[in-house]
Amino acid sequence: MPARRFPPLDLTGGRVELGHGAGGRAMTQLVREIFVAVFDSDALARGDDNARVPVPPGRLVMTTDGYVITPRRFPGGDIGALAVHGTINDVAMSGAQPLYLSAGFIVEEGLPLAELAWVAGTMAGAAREAGVAIVTGDTKVVERGGCDGLFITTTGVGVLTDDRLDIAGDRARPGDAVVLSGTVGDHGVAVLSQRENLAFESPVLSDSAALNGLVAAMVAAVPELRAMRDPTRGGLAATLNELADQSGVGMVIEEAAVPVTPAVRGACELLGLDPLTVANEGKLVAICPPGRADDLVAAMRAHPLGREAARIGTVIEDADRLVQLETALGGRRVVDWLAGEQLPRIC
Amino acid sequence: MPARRFPPLDLTGGRVELGHGAGGRAMTQLVREIFVAVFDSDALARGDDNARVPVPPGRLVMTTDGYVITPRRFPGGDIGALAVHGTINDVAMSGAQPLYLSAGFIVEEGLPLAELAWVAGTMAGAAREAGVAIVTGDTKVVERGGCDGLFITTTGVGVLTDDRLDIAGDRARPGDAVVLSGTVGDHGVAVLSQRENLAFESPVLSDSAALNGLVAAMVAAVPELRAMRDPTRGGLAATLNELADQSGVGMVIEEAAVPVTPAVRGACELLGLDPLTVANEGKLVAICPPGRADDLVAAMRAHPLGREAARIGTVIEDADRLVQLETALGGRRVVDWLAGEQLPRIC
Repeated sequence: MPARRFPPLDLTGGRVELGHGAGGRAMTQLVREIFVAVFDSDALARGDDNARVPVPPGRLVMTTDGYVITPRRFPGGDIGALAVHGTINDVAMSGAQPLYLSAGFIVEEGLPLAELAWVAGTMAGAAREAGVAIVTGDTKVVERGGCDGLFITTTGVGVLTDDRLDIAGDRARPGDAVVLSGTVGDHGVAVLSQRENLAFESPVLSDSAALNGLVAAMVAAVPELRAMRDPTRGGLAATLNELADQSGVGMVIEEAAVPVTPAVRGACELLGLDPLTVANEGKLVAICPPGRADDLVAAMRAHPLGREAARIGTVIEDADRLVQLETALGGRRVVDWLAGEQLPRIC
Repeated sequence: MPARRFPPLDLTGGRVELGHGAGGRAMTQLVREIFVAVFDSDALARGDDNARVPVPPGRLVMTTDGYVITPRRFPGGDIGALAVHGTINDVAMSGAQPLYLSAGFIVEEGLPLAELAWVAGTMAGAAREAGVAIVTGDTKVVERGGCDGLFITTTGVGVLTDDRLDIAGDRARPGDAVVLSGTVGDHGVAVLSQRENLAFESPVLSDSAALNGLVAAMVAAVPELRAMRDPTRGGLAATLNELADQSGVGMVIEEAAVPVTPAVRGACELLGLDPLTVANEGKLVAICPPGRADDLVAAMRAHPLGREAARIGTVIEDADRLVQLETALGGRRVVDWLAGEQLPRIC
């Protein structure tokens, strides 16, 4: 262990300074006392600019996501846990087991060191719970006003060890079943209620969660899965439209089959939002051959994060690649994806 | 190929809007017309949130870096090429062949689409030249004032296929040779001259370059290499101090052996900077057993990016882990790493 040459950081009253991003002694200290202290990674603790880690043979899966959410703490989560969950989920949507994360921090000069340490702690906790290691990172500090507090970019890698799996957005086929893992709209409503200081009768919590355990159960039960995606920005509506567009198909979704909690439904009515277009951070959509839908839903319901899983619709042939919603009254309307912005900085 | 439903982006007069980061149709269009159009990656073009790519068996190497440099264009480079070079280099410093990059963009509302397209183009060019593929990415848009124009976080992965290699910052041993690949201070002086609108007699260009080719030649010639690192933020002084600290050793560096161009030396005198503390983006320091130094320097000089490679010093036993500089007059002074910030946002 290298000798400490400095008094420890003041994690109570101290603030991030430009020097903490300058590549010198102050940066080394910040990295050791805030990140290495909690991330519990031998690769990171070794102090190199890269991590060398073992991987099983297989196809590598790689994904990256930036997190700029405001506010940074919200009911049911925070930017740190979200940055871990969201990127784990994007790896898991391939069917792979997520293994390692990197974390890049862009920090505004003046951010309390206590907040940075707290975010590092929630990241470490979320990663540990999901069985994924944060193995390398980077910190840049920009001057006051150069960014809004704290942005985190996490990159995840995993390995597809099962050669049978070929899960991708362009593989949906007419006749396939569309399955959803649970309620929609929770994350977006939770963040918005915090942002706008709205008080609802029952507080709405973000659904932010790592889905790799659920996915492992799903691919074990139904390796024939065609597509999976987590409906984050743009909500379920955007995700279904993306999948339809990639696969060159249409979809018919039964409105009554899409679970929305009464609290989220009420908040959306108040705010003029459609729950189908509101972001989620712990849900997934899966598409599978029709004969395997019952097995898939059963496997999902046996997992704590899939208890409300349900088949919500069917893939159809449609040259226009439209997603249609069958309403409770039997009518159909087209579910468009948003052209513009509904909720900026929701993740 | 999915059908285009929108008129193409206006890459001449258009600007980035919040909707381009909203996960809807506008974002899909931005990704396709600006990033997929130039990054030339099947994985990216497929439209999933993750990339599945083949890797040879071996140890995985992973690294990440944020780029917040200002100005975004500078003599000899720009933020896009830098974000590719810098992350390739951090992978290469392990001795691994860098294979894939991810790119996360955080963009301020109002950035000209032309600038984003131009940056994507320089990234694509830098990656192609280095033989590395950009396979996945993410775009977030923050409101005006939420960030300063454009930040890029790139993550690189590579594979160490040669089991003999064990190159890390904690492996320097007393007696080892310290080798430098070329002149120092060029990148920092180039950026600063652009930033401060300084005109020097001979313009100083950034040394921004991908070092993976140079490293491949080095590890082929001298697999016994102990440590490698690129002296970016904090310059050569910070890098040597980091390596001494990690390995628990001291170093003696001959001042006369460290190449600095007359233009960089003059600019540093004018600006009151020490070239040893100024950032580089296309140089590396290597440490090897003393008996292999001549072979290493010869292999480096045979590569275009190592033509001025030289042995600059020796690792010594020192419980205080000091880096000492032997001056031309025969005296010695301690080369400290900076405690604070000299040049904010130099990378």
